[in-house]
This record gives sequence, structure tokens and C-alpha cells, in this order.
Amino acid sequence: MIIDISSQENPVVKHAKQLSKRKFREQHKEYLIEGIRIVRDAMENNQTIKTILFCDDLYHTAGGEDLVRCLAEKGFKLYRLPDKMYKELSGTQNPQGIMAVLPFEEYYPEDVLMKDKGFYLILDRIQDPGNMGTIIRTADAAGVDGVFVTKGSVDIYNGKTIRATMGSIFHLPIVHTGSTSETIAMLKKKGVKVFAASPKAEKYHYEGNYVGPCAIIIGNEANGILWEDIEASDVLIKIPMMGKAESLNASIAASIVMYEVVRQRYQRSISSENFKIITQ
Amino acid sequence: MIIDISSQENPVVKHAKQLSKRKFREQHKEYLIEGIRIVRDAMENNQTIKTILFCDDLYHTAGGEDLVRCLAEKGFKLYRLPDKMYKELSGTQNPQGIMAVLPFEEYYPEDVLMKDKGFYLILDRIQDPGNMGTIIRTADAAGVDGVFVTKGSVDIYNGKTIRATMGSIFHLPIVHTGSTSETIAMLKKKGVKVFAASPKAEKYHYEGNYVGPCAIIIGNEANGILWEDIEASDVLIKIPMMGKAESLNASIAASIVMYEVVRQRYQRSISSENFKIITQ
Repeated sequence: MIIDISSQENPVVKHAKQLSKRKFREQHKEYLIEGIRIVRDAMENNQTIKTILFCDDLYHTAGGEDLVRCLAEKGFKLYRLPDKMYKELSGTQNPQGIMAVLPFEEYYPEDVLMKDKGFYLILDRIQDPGNMGTIIRTADAAGVDGVFVTKGSVDIYNGKTIRATMGSIFHLPIVHTGSTSETIAMLKKKGVKVFAASPKAEKYHYEGNYVGPCAIIIGNEANGILWEDIEASDVLIKIPMMGKAESLNASIAASIVMYEVVRQRYQRSISSENFKIITQ
Repeated sequence: MIIDISSQENPVVKHAKQLSKRKFREQHKEYLIEGIRIVRDAMENNQTIKTILFCDDLYHTAGGEDLVRCLAEKGFKLYRLPDKMYKELSGTQNPQGIMAVLPFEEYYPEDVLMKDKGFYLILDRIQDPGNMGTIIRTADAAGVDGVFVTKGSVDIYNGKTIRATMGSIFHLPIVHTGSTSETIAMLKKKGVKVFAASPKAEKYHYEGNYVGPCAIIIGNEANGILWEDIEASDVLIKIPMMGKAESLNASIAASIVMYEVVRQRYQRSISSENFKIITQ
């Protein structure tokens, strides 16, 4: 069903506009997603979708018409705005013409801490929305079982973060946790080995053993991990710096360590191949 | 020596303004860098600096005053612009108040293809300036000996790319090469094993052997590596996708493979440690 809206004062439009601000997102526990691909992802991943807004510009983009048809067939109400009003509402420079309001999906530690060989990420006050989104996307690809986002981090429901996740926001559980030190203590109590990535480490990341349950802490871009949290961790690891670069981008560092975990866990199962590669 | 400029028509200002466009950069074979850190990096890495422009706003940022003093002591001429004129010239939203004009630093294949165990990257029509810069930064960190940027790639002298390199643009040789297929043929002729990262591969990236001279191709973000270039490569590798993500960001994929090369080359030299980790 398509419902036409022509007034800026319409409560559906006003509500969507509010959700561009973190304060209102947290108050309503709702957020906005925008673009054909991610709205389709939300639908295909059976996310709860509260409201869908679109404009006729959508029909100029490949897949737009088909998406509207699919959503309508599934019984969603679609609010159609005049193109100009949609553009004013949009958070992107070249809007594709469709956005949706979704409720926060809230996970608790007990939802994710169930697996024998759990693989977790602790995002310690990450500030850049692009880094946050890219880390979530890579964590999904690496098969991470849960991401702990500590107090003081950028909002994962920020528009830039959502875009950078490329739909992975729907694929893996994200737990909003307290401070980093509380998170470390909680995970250690559950038998999870906590690795802190820090240039102060003596061990290289590939010298860690990630075969059992483990969590990797990725620290704040500007200041890294607090000293007390480094001390509370089980193992300190660093990524070797072979050239003259002083540091790596946080999402790059996170990916390198996550894929070392993948390598150790999966290369094991083909140990003869592995052996050949390591020793030849 | 500080020289004050007050007119927009001053040839120094007009020249700097032109360099925001790729066409003019290529015509003059010069580019702009902007910000305290990168100008300091250029000075400390003994880059040729043709012109320096700044405004008094620079003194409000930590390190600004010290940088001006250092540059003046080294005998550089510094052009001072009124704050407002500087802001109009700047490519950033919150300019720190200093920029410099540098000549392109041009490398040829023979400059980089000299090492026994050379480690190279072929950037196959990368389009996103942020990806390009982040890959250069990570390549520096991973000890890559040379980066080949193929025809049709984004300009490495784009302001966004330069910023994302975090100074690594000065640390490693970047070769502007022809097509990807010409680059593959040239490297293979020199005894370099060429690895193509593609989801079509059967081997995982950690199953490749990167101990000898090798080059990794990272393909265009939207379309990957052309089929003919995949066929021309020696080994196809893919990064395992364990979750529901469809793909990885190009700079993330590049980093994961580069650090597998680092691991294989360096973990080898501590083989007893290595053995313990792999087999325990």
C-alpha cells in the first residue's frame, strides 16, 4: 500500500527527520537506513521495519522499482514523498530515494557468550563512524560471534557507520557494554582469553594462540587502549611495522588480527597443506 | 623568510589553486599537501618542497609555530596569506593553516625491481581516494618494496588520498604503470610470482607461498580484476568469508593479504616459536 505525503508537518516525516540525531535515536530506540541495497538487506534478513519512505526518484535507479514491488507484496505500508521533500530529509548527497525506520536490535552478553570457541571483538571507544562500520563489516566476514561496543564509542546507528557496514549491521550481534575494563572482566570470568592490540606489546599478533575462546580489543584511534585495560588483558600483541609508517588505521589493524584468528582456526583443519606452506 | 601576500591574483596563490585539479597537477607535475603533520613529514623525509603557504591561524594549532620556525631555519621561503584567503584556497573543512607544493616523485620499474625477495603491490584501477591512501599507508607498514598503480586508477596526488596515506606517500616508491596486463607480464618476466586476489579463487590467501619475490594484485572496487588478468596471474587466492558479508573493502582485503606475506616471511625466522603456535 502506498500512502502519499505532501506536508513537512506529517508526523512520519517529522519522526524520520528527528532520527538523524543520536539523542532522538536513543530516546526512541530507532534508527534510519537509507539506500536500495540496505533496505533490501533489511527485508531479506527479516529485520523489523517500522516505516518506509520513498520518492519517485527511486524508479530511476536499478532495482528501485523491484524493491517497491517486493515490499508492497510483503504487506508493508510505503509513504511516498515529493522528490524535493525527500531530498531535504535524506542524509546523503545523491539519495537513491528510499529510507526506512528500524528499531534498535539489542543484544546482551548472554546472547552471544554461548559458544565453545567463541570469537569476540571489543571496540574500545572507537570514534570514527567509517572505522566502526568497516570493522563490523570485516567482523561479519571473519565469522566473529559478537562485537562489544564500549561506553564512549561512536553511535553504531550513525548514518555513515550503517553505510560502511554494507548490511553487516544485520548479520552479527552487537552488544552495548559498559567500560572496557568491565567488559574485559566479564569476558575473562567466562573463560574467554582477552588479547589487547597495542604497539607496546612484545609479541607479534601471529604469535598469539587464538584457537580457544578469545576476544580482541581494538583501541581508540587517537589514544589506543588505556594502560589499566592493557594490564587487565591476558595477552598483548602488536602488528609488526616493517617500514616507516608510524601506525595503522584502526579498521586495518582490527582486520589483520581477525584474519590471523581465522587462519589459525581454519588452516588447522588442513594440516598437511599447512605444513607444506609453513616449512617448504 | 616570510613574504606576505595580499592579492588573490598573486601567481603563487593562483598556481596553488590550480593544483586542486588533476589536469593541472599532471600538467605541472606538482601537487599540494596540507596540514602540520604532513608538511613536517615532507621536511623530515627530505622531500623537495617548492612553495609553502600559510596563514596566522596556524599558530592556534599545536606544533604550528614550531614548524614555521623549523622551515624558516632551513632556509625555506614562506608565503603568508590572510586567514580568509587561505581558507578559500584550502581543500579541507577545518584547515590547520599550512600547505606546500611538491613535485611529483617519479619512479620506474627498474628503481624498485632490484631486491632478491621483492614484495610488490599492483593496484588495479582502484577508484576510491581513501582506499588508495589507506593501501599506501598499510603497504609502507608491511614493508612493501614498490606499489604499481595501473592506468585508470584514482590520482594518488588527490588531497583525500594524500591525507589517508598519513605521510607514507613519502616512504615508498610508487610506480605509475600501464595496464594491469602489461604490469603482470613485466613482473613475471623479472621472476616475480603474481598473486591475484579474487573471490573466484580456490586457494585461501594463507595457502599461497609468498616467501620468494611476489606481487599481489588488488582489483577495482566495483568489478574486481579482469578475467584476462586473473588468467595471466600465477596464483589465484581468496580471503575466506566465514559470515554473511558478501565482500570486504578493498583496503581491508589488501591489508589481510599483505600481512600474511609479512607473517610467512618473518615467522619463518623464529621457526621454533612458529612451530609451537602452529602445532600446539
